[in-house]
Amino acid sequence: MSPFTLTHRSSETGARRGVLRLPHATVQTPVFMPVGTLGTVKAMTQEELSDLGFRLILGNTYHLYLRPGHELVRRAGGLHRFISWDGAMLTDSGGFQVFSLQDLRKISEEGAAFKSHLDGSEHFFSPERSLEVQHALGADIVMAFDECPPYPCPLDLTREATERTHRWLARCKTYHDAQGTDQLLFGIAQGGVYEDLRAESAQFVASLDTPGIAVGGVSVGEPPDLMRAAIAWSVPHLPEHKPRYLMGVGTPQDILDAVARGIDMFDCVLPTRLGRNGTLYTTRGRVNIKGARFAEDFGPVDPDCPCAVCRRYSAAYLRHLYKCNEILASRLATYHNLAHYAYLMAGIRAAIEANAYAAFHARALARYAEGDDGDDPGR
Amino acid sequence: MSPFTLTHRSSETGARRGVLRLPHATVQTPVFMPVGTLGTVKAMTQEELSDLGFRLILGNTYHLYLRPGHELVRRAGGLHRFISWDGAMLTDSGGFQVFSLQDLRKISEEGAAFKSHLDGSEHFFSPERSLEVQHALGADIVMAFDECPPYPCPLDLTREATERTHRWLARCKTYHDAQGTDQLLFGIAQGGVYEDLRAESAQFVASLDTPGIAVGGVSVGEPPDLMRAAIAWSVPHLPEHKPRYLMGVGTPQDILDAVARGIDMFDCVLPTRLGRNGTLYTTRGRVNIKGARFAEDFGPVDPDCPCAVCRRYSAAYLRHLYKCNEILASRLATYHNLAHYAYLMAGIRAAIEANAYAAFHARALARYAEGDDGDDPGR
Repeated sequence: MSPFTLTHRSSETGARRGVLRLPHATVQTPVFMPVGTLGTVKAMTQEELSDLGFRLILGNTYHLYLRPGHELVRRAGGLHRFISWDGAMLTDSGGFQVFSLQDLRKISEEGAAFKSHLDGSEHFFSPERSLEVQHALGADIVMAFDECPPYPCPLDLTREATERTHRWLARCKTYHDAQGTDQLLFGIAQGGVYEDLRAESAQFVASLDTPGIAVGGVSVGEPPDLMRAAIAWSVPHLPEHKPRYLMGVGTPQDILDAVARGIDMFDCVLPTRLGRNGTLYTTRGRVNIKGARFAEDFGPVDPDCPCAVCRRYSAAYLRHLYKCNEILASRLATYHNLAHYAYLMAGIRAAIEANAYAAFHARALARYAEGDDGDDPGR
Repeated sequence: MSPFTLTHRSSETGARRGVLRLPHATVQTPVFMPVGTLGTVKAMTQEELSDLGFRLILGNTYHLYLRPGHELVRRAGGLHRFISWDGAMLTDSGGFQVFSLQDLRKISEEGAAFKSHLDGSEHFFSPERSLEVQHALGADIVMAFDECPPYPCPLDLTREATERTHRWLARCKTYHDAQGTDQLLFGIAQGGVYEDLRAESAQFVASLDTPGIAVGGVSVGEPPDLMRAAIAWSVPHLPEHKPRYLMGVGTPQDILDAVARGIDMFDCVLPTRLGRNGTLYTTRGRVNIKGARFAEDFGPVDPDCPCAVCRRYSAAYLRHLYKCNEILASRLATYHNLAHYAYLMAGIRAAIEANAYAAFHARALARYAEGDDGDDPGR
């Protein structure tokens, strides 16, 4: 039986509403996954993530492989037990981090040799090795080992990386299927900023019949229009009845747009990273809490936000905490930003159920544009 | 009516059990006050402090005067409202911090001129000015502006500082009484490591009839025996029916000893600072969570601790978080250490009520000695 059930379809847009049944939790889609790189969503407790309604969080295989090591996590009973998380988890393949190492890695058909960014020690990830590590970590969803081309990247190199990604996916599937695990393997479609390659890759990945499919290689520095194009070129070739995961995306605006194009799953470090840096999301755009205008603003950062931070603490207090580099600043801002994303996703799901997604989408974008500080945090 | 009621006295020791009624909360003594230097007990939310049963926390006048400034706090409606704390607060006078500035301050009969450690800007605290700032902050208990001699300090200089502290206390009281505030002014007895001076100072401060009295100038680097002596020389000259506050103390062992000598109130940065540095209190002594022996310890740091951290997270996970410099490490360790202090104080109060303090004291000290890592964190 498929773990994914579509429950509603938007009649005016490509938006879908579904339920994803995973070994450790049932997840309502469209869903945003907070990023817990090293087995912790930075500055948050697992209790707080649950309280905000998150049932699926992400861990980074490359980082956990180096610290504390996947064998230690296996001995602890898996990542869920090691970090005491009672929801579901997804691990990436480590590929994105390995390929980001630039001078520290060397790619061959077999896999990628790399040096640890921590101590320079030498390691090797192949498709099989990445899955071996991910199986030890024990996440509900494991990702195929792929090669994610940077932006910009010429057509021939993008084709080469995309085709290697396809061969690696076939190896991943063979290895994974032989293990008899209840973990779900998702394939990843690549293709860079080239329409034909995107279509070809989506078709190939769809043909391997993994229980979910990711669109990768977006949000790697390309202009927003090209990101939207990459989604538009990929999605029509993906099967209706499988969850579609847009890796590493994004801002609330990116998510709203991608949902309209039929994406079901998202992850991004933005709400947590920006929170630690003093940028807070509000329903009227992003604000930099360090700004002088908040010095004596004794009301909440976002009067329309019902989160525990906005109910109790003022913008002026948050600004003071930032100015003093207090840990509580990172805590409160991270919590608020993740609450903002949680409410956004709940609103998206409710709008699709009511078949009102187009209007919801337009209204949300208009409100975000109202008071935005306009600082570009990068992606 | 006195805000302080003694409810139990230990028959074998000097320990006392009491209730301190403050404008914002009723406080059970002996009490430990977490230190919230800049309007935040580092790494904790106000909700968590309440959940652990703390009803009285400390703020530092010097730091809050510089950031965000006492006038801003006044406009926010006082420190309670600014930080959204529904319990009681105590502010120190700023004297200890100012006198710690060494080369940046100059003392006269009028007060102390000093330069900000942040930007070198010039400021002046007199007894009246310290109270003016503290009145703006609005804490339930405000402290007299005193001069705290360092250790070691020769007799003549200690006498000079102690006598100036007495003259300043008289000025504090005159100024404070003229303001018609419901805030309580506590005097501070000094006298360094000299028996006669300690007795003289305690007697003088007692004669001014402030609603509470602090023993100051301990835990400033003197050997533990001299700290205990300073308490023993001071306490017999303090009135029975007023709360006695030992400033800046201390370790659980220090607190257990001082309670036996009749002290009612404590504050110290140790549980929070040590927590951030990876030292955790357990009922069997302090442990350094970074140690290799915790790498695969999948049980709680302290199996006898019922706190939310020990119930959910393992020593191995905490160690991993420390190794990765994750914010959650500071959060969990601070919470656990403050929980340890909260349970310690609850145990102390229960033992006094049962007239079993001597046995409780001896047993607690023996247990702390069992597994202590032996690292001296300093005071």
